[in-house]
Amino acid sequence: MQKLIRSLVQKNRSKIVLVVLDGLGGLPVNGKTELETAATPNMDSLAQTSACGLHTPVAPGITPGSGPGHLSLFGYDPLEFQIGRGILEALGLGLEIRRTDVAVRCNYATVRNGLIIDRRAGRIPTDQSRKLTERLQKAITRIDDAEITFAPGMEHRFAVIMRFPEDLAKDAAQIPDTDPQLEGKAPLNPQALSQSAERVAKIAGRVIAQVHEILKNEERANFALMRGFSGMPDIPTFEQAYGLNALAIASYPMYRGLATLVGMHAPALEGSVEDEIAFLKDQYDNYDFFFLHVKKVDSYGEDGNFAEKSKRIEEFDALLPRIIALNPDVLAITGDHSTPALVKGHSWHPVPVLLKSPYVLGGLCSSFSERACFRGEFGIFPTIQLMSFMLANALRLKKFGA
Amino acid sequence: MQKLIRSLVQKNRSKIVLVVLDGLGGLPVNGKTELETAATPNMDSLAQTSACGLHTPVAPGITPGSGPGHLSLFGYDPLEFQIGRGILEALGLGLEIRRTDVAVRCNYATVRNGLIIDRRAGRIPTDQSRKLTERLQKAITRIDDAEITFAPGMEHRFAVIMRFPEDLAKDAAQIPDTDPQLEGKAPLNPQALSQSAERVAKIAGRVIAQVHEILKNEERANFALMRGFSGMPDIPTFEQAYGLNALAIASYPMYRGLATLVGMHAPALEGSVEDEIAFLKDQYDNYDFFFLHVKKVDSYGEDGNFAEKSKRIEEFDALLPRIIALNPDVLAITGDHSTPALVKGHSWHPVPVLLKSPYVLGGLCSSFSERACFRGEFGIFPTIQLMSFMLANALRLKKFGA
Repeated sequence: MQKLIRSLVQKNRSKIVLVVLDGLGGLPVNGKTELETAATPNMDSLAQTSACGLHTPVAPGITPGSGPGHLSLFGYDPLEFQIGRGILEALGLGLEIRRTDVAVRCNYATVRNGLIIDRRAGRIPTDQSRKLTERLQKAITRIDDAEITFAPGMEHRFAVIMRFPEDLAKDAAQIPDTDPQLEGKAPLNPQALSQSAERVAKIAGRVIAQVHEILKNEERANFALMRGFSGMPDIPTFEQAYGLNALAIASYPMYRGLATLVGMHAPALEGSVEDEIAFLKDQYDNYDFFFLHVKKVDSYGEDGNFAEKSKRIEEFDALLPRIIALNPDVLAITGDHSTPALVKGHSWHPVPVLLKSPYVLGGLCSSFSERACFRGEFGIFPTIQLMSFMLANALRLKKFGA
Repeated sequence: MQKLIRSLVQKNRSKIVLVVLDGLGGLPVNGKTELETAATPNMDSLAQTSACGLHTPVAPGITPGSGPGHLSLFGYDPLEFQIGRGILEALGLGLEIRRTDVAVRCNYATVRNGLIIDRRAGRIPTDQSRKLTERLQKAITRIDDAEITFAPGMEHRFAVIMRFPEDLAKDAAQIPDTDPQLEGKAPLNPQALSQSAERVAKIAGRVIAQVHEILKNEERANFALMRGFSGMPDIPTFEQAYGLNALAIASYPMYRGLATLVGMHAPALEGSVEDEIAFLKDQYDNYDFFFLHVKKVDSYGEDGNFAEKSKRIEEFDALLPRIIALNPDVLAITGDHSTPALVKGHSWHPVPVLLKSPYVLGGLCSSFSERACFRGEFGIFPTIQLMSFMLANALRLKKFGA
């Protein structure tokens, strides 16, 4: 499908804005969902003149992670383009990843006499863990020709990136985890399952040895277990796939990281949704496509906090007129997956979407909600088609055949 | 899918009528679409007791050409069966195409000292161009064992068919265009990219040479550039695929041509929709399946003439009782794609369809329109499935499995 799209892409001066309210979709508590409960006069009014529907990020019944959820929104088949856990972890910790990087999720562990006593080093507090990781970074910056970067995480977690002068990343997934998953066993050595992964495995082994040497006198965190060896997926950029010069506006590093995977420009940004929208306005002339990410809707869904999730949706709605004022050719508002407070986590439910452009029927939905969107002109559709709809409505696709 | 259908086909005496209002789907202007604006009491009444829905000819967001749009309606995957530009051009000019034919789109061009001065020979008027083409046809009818046919087109355009005694057509697409796309350059020789295309390329080269010899004293149109070398797609006929003896009723040659691609009988016919329906009635006993094509709906959509497009839909509706009076077992009314006056061209929007048979639920739509059809029992579905629905409702498909 993306190949077909690619063969039909044409450039023009249109602007496309995709707003992702993370985890938007919900389920009723006392009869109404979070979105139905929120007072959203601006989205309701948009929905009346927009194309509406619900989209399924991976497949019916499948609960998507944030990676697959966003890849789908960006038009990439999440089953074809799988993002390694190491890469996701590193992106989540705010690291910039390049095509020649191999990323690994690490745990501090306790090892005595060659055997693992505690796979999580007693879940040492984050501030202690951070100090250890900074110590490692000071001591280890390069092994042979590989640059080594350490990134502190929560509690016993951290990430390591090995940056090679050339692209060894595509075989990184050929190295199994060094965590045997059982205490009382010895940690495994990084083992290359393919010849081309041998150099990566060797460097990883030396990282582990040096970490152990530096931390050997620590009571608990004296060892590093590695999981999720991975390189960047080989994925076409937005420019290659759609001819779009794209900007990601997200205050959480993970989502900027996901956007950089597909070649979006994703400058560091900390601040509120208001700040994000101000940045959109500021950069509006410089890009064709804008991905604006609103995190907190999901966070409160994960906490099971129905009222706060609903309130965050309301807050976005109140700011929406500032986006509408930019008058984008195509404006889509949706989520990357559902996170019903009732479920306290991501869920498999399809996600409501509205798409505003001059080329829609409209008139089918009286408000923006899960239940209203079932009456919309998009019906229920795979999320990866949303990109096609946005491009079509921006008149960026030529006719197929004569 | 078509393979599955083929394995289940059974013959009976049922009659299926497929009416294609070309470019039927539209978009609202002042709140209503062309179809919603038209007074269509007969289609509205049918819709109330029919299965309704909307179909997507190629893929969501993709705007189909007439070729892919019709192939989909006929149940053929338009991504699998792609029709070459030369074939489409020749069909559009009303030429009959056989399996061993190679068709090429040609431009008259001006060539001086071996270089192209004007790729379109100054867009010479159609009547002058026609005379030249007739002169060529008189002089050139055969080269070696290939019959050569010239067909005049608009302005500088014409088409050439090379008919071989055996099937060389499948490699014809292996010959690149001879038009270098730039003035000041020399025209290219037809060049075979595969060994099996060599004979076709050689004959094409001799056509070009003979044309130049005949026209060498012309001021402007003294050369022929060739583009879109193509043969008939290797496509099963309606009889092979569905066991249907099919008749195409269309006053525009292009649509008769598309129908002949899938083995329909498609006699020449000039006249109004009224004449087409009279012909349907006349031939009703002789075929199982009837494809009746109404062109003008699309034409006015392409012109951006909302009122006239709407009026053509009304005119068809007024004639519809004559088709209903034949009492076909299955009657489907739809378009091959949408052509909203707002877009002034084909568009990606799904196309409304109604299917009348004794075996539908009905009762879901109060009228025939884009918006009403979203509530219908077919929902939104790929166009190639319409053929399955028609066959099923004609009781022409056996049970799958025991």
